[in-house]
Amino acid sequence: MTTRRYRIATIPGDGIGTEVIPAGQRAVEAVAARHGFAVAWDVYDWSCARYAETGRMMPEDGVDRVRGADAIYLGAVGAPGVPDHVSLWGLLIPLRRELDLYANVRPVKLIEGITSPLAGRGPEDIDFVVVRENVEGEYSEIGGRLHGGTEHEMVSQMSVFTRRCTDRIMDYAFELAKGRRGHVTSATKSNGIVHTMPFWDERFAAAAARHPGVETVQYHIDILTAYFVRNPDWFDVVVGSNLFGDILSDLGPAIAGSIGIAPSANLNPERAAASMFEPVHGSAPDIAGQGVANPIAAVWTAAMMLEHLGEDEAAAELMGAIEASLARPETRTRDLGGTADTDGSIRAVIEAIG
Amino acid sequence: MTTRRYRIATIPGDGIGTEVIPAGQRAVEAVAARHGFAVAWDVYDWSCARYAETGRMMPEDGVDRVRGADAIYLGAVGAPGVPDHVSLWGLLIPLRRELDLYANVRPVKLIEGITSPLAGRGPEDIDFVVVRENVEGEYSEIGGRLHGGTEHEMVSQMSVFTRRCTDRIMDYAFELAKGRRGHVTSATKSNGIVHTMPFWDERFAAAAARHPGVETVQYHIDILTAYFVRNPDWFDVVVGSNLFGDILSDLGPAIAGSIGIAPSANLNPERAAASMFEPVHGSAPDIAGQGVANPIAAVWTAAMMLEHLGEDEAAAELMGAIEASLARPETRTRDLGGTADTDGSIRAVIEAIG
Ligand SMILES: CC(C)[C@H](C(=O)O)[C@@H](O)C(=O)O
Ligand SMILES: CC(C)[C@H](C(=O)O)[C@@H](O)C(=O)O
Repeated sequence: MTTRRYRIATIPGDGIGTEVIPAGQRAVEAVAARHGFAVAWDVYDWSCARYAETGRMMPEDGVDRVRGADAIYLGAVGAPGVPDHVSLWGLLIPLRRELDLYANVRPVKLIEGITSPLAGRGPEDIDFVVVRENVEGEYSEIGGRLHGGTEHEMVSQMSVFTRRCTDRIMDYAFELAKGRRGHVTSATKSNGIVHTMPFWDERFAAAAARHPGVETVQYHIDILTAYFVRNPDWFDVVVGSNLFGDILSDLGPAIAGSIGIAPSANLNPERAAASMFEPVHGSAPDIAGQGVANPIAAVWTAAMMLEHLGEDEAAAELMGAIEASLARPETRTRDLGGTADTDGSIRAVIEAIG
Repeated sequence: MTTRRYRIATIPGDGIGTEVIPAGQRAVEAVAARHGFAVAWDVYDWSCARYAETGRMMPEDGVDRVRGADAIYLGAVGAPGVPDHVSLWGLLIPLRRELDLYANVRPVKLIEGITSPLAGRGPEDIDFVVVRENVEGEYSEIGGRLHGGTEHEMVSQMSVFTRRCTDRIMDYAFELAKGRRGHVTSATKSNGIVHTMPFWDERFAAAAARHPGVETVQYHIDILTAYFVRNPDWFDVVVGSNLFGDILSDLGPAIAGSIGIAPSANLNPERAAASMFEPVHGSAPDIAGQGVANPIAAVWTAAMMLEHLGEDEAAAELMGAIEASLARPETRTRDLGGTADTDGSIRAVIEAIG
């Protein structure tokens, strides 16, 4: 039997990113041998720390260095003193865009042992996936400032939606739904946002026609956030624009009990470039360096990465180990009402493997 | 003693709007006499029904007809078969804009007798106000479509924020906070939306400097929606842009147990034109005409209107009557787990007055 080998471009980043990514690597190593594959971790120091030294979050050819990897495993970026537009538009957003990682996929799943803040909700009620358009829409650099510094000052920003990018994210969402419960919800705001959202609705309708057999519904983003709270069991796959998907993929994990454990994938579904896997949580400078960060999001993210690599069994084993480790308070971290530190939490995951 | 007289431009609108506004009027009449004022209700048939007959939601000089009223009392607009952009951009949005009703104010308050979907939360945990910028920002008609009907089709929409409008909504929020618990939260997204939201943050900081003694904090809209669910007790006044305020003022009522009872005010704080008061709920065509609509939002909205008119005691009496009527299941409507119809619910409110 030949060993399958994967090169993973690994970017721990800042703050707790540098604590949870090594923990995630340990968990992957623990399943790799058992499933006949090996991982080469190419570690990059791209971060706010690097920015402070060199004036750049990553080298100029950074994107090209990781483009050919089998996957990218990212911790979190962001540090006090470094403006967000530097850390994000200098690393995270160029990676998402230049690698055309257009599908941001964020599972929302209430895991046994985690308590939802919603009264009376259990694991059977909350199990859906937010699919977020990840490269255009409301996140744009088009716009600017006029009459700066005067009382007439104004700023503008243009959202742009193309048929190409809208259709392909819709297709991704519909295909995903076919392997799940066959239902897609579209997040819209076509009653308030007059040019882009009616177009979004048209493309959603066109996608529904391309994918017969998938049930569909659309809600305006305002009431949709209310339905996440009232009726989380209504959702299977939820597709949204860059901004709406961003909002829903923080609200989703909140109703599922913890943003601290939520994973995400930034996918190039055609595999024209490496896809990137990152926890939803940030760099959490307030608790960084204490060894108490919750590594579960990094492990769950790694499970998504393994699935993307075709290592479905190893991925499923990791997920099972996560669930086993979350079931007991002594192996949960403090943010989940437990007593474990990062090391204790990851050891429990590794012990639960197999 | 002279009787104070108010002229209220009354626009029941469509669907349940035509059921709950008359109910709200009855409740106002019931307090008016007791507090030495009288109301003249100028009723307008502006609606989708009117659009179907005349091709216009309201007459061309509609805005000017109501501009000089003491207040505008609006039910809801929207009907199946009439596109949203017609009903909203033909009535609601022109009223908001041409009367410069720049402060959309939406209380989020868990009332005794209403159950929050959040586990373990009671009235002491949820009591805040969402202040939404109501005339610019993301809701704009700037933008359009290119290469329509081809695979290269694209649409764009420009958000515009001016210092004038941003500063005045901030000032409104800070002044409101001074009469409450002295805390303002700003909804931002300056890490993803590069031109407008950093400006929003600058103006928030400037407002904080203009209003010393008010505590402030800002959160990105994504995590803020999560905090609404996790930590509703953190909030006193929450200020947001047109879109973010729209989202938060549906999510807020959802955590407070019911969008069906949530009120809102569209204010021109300088009183250069009539302010407008409308329930947050829509026209609900699915239950319209059955006499079962919940009139509480319309009454609560009327209480906000009376407060705006300076009739604070009458407003407080209405609020007390709402709370008394919600405390018992037999006087709550079915959407709140009760058994009353619209008439039964409003009679309970009226009986509880005084
Ligand atoms: C109907 C729609 C245009 C409106 C808005 O988004 O402003 C509504 O959601 C509201 O909150 O008043
Ligand atoms: C950090 C920020 C720019 C980012 C986003 O809004 O995309 C984050 O919130 C996320 O969801 O990945």
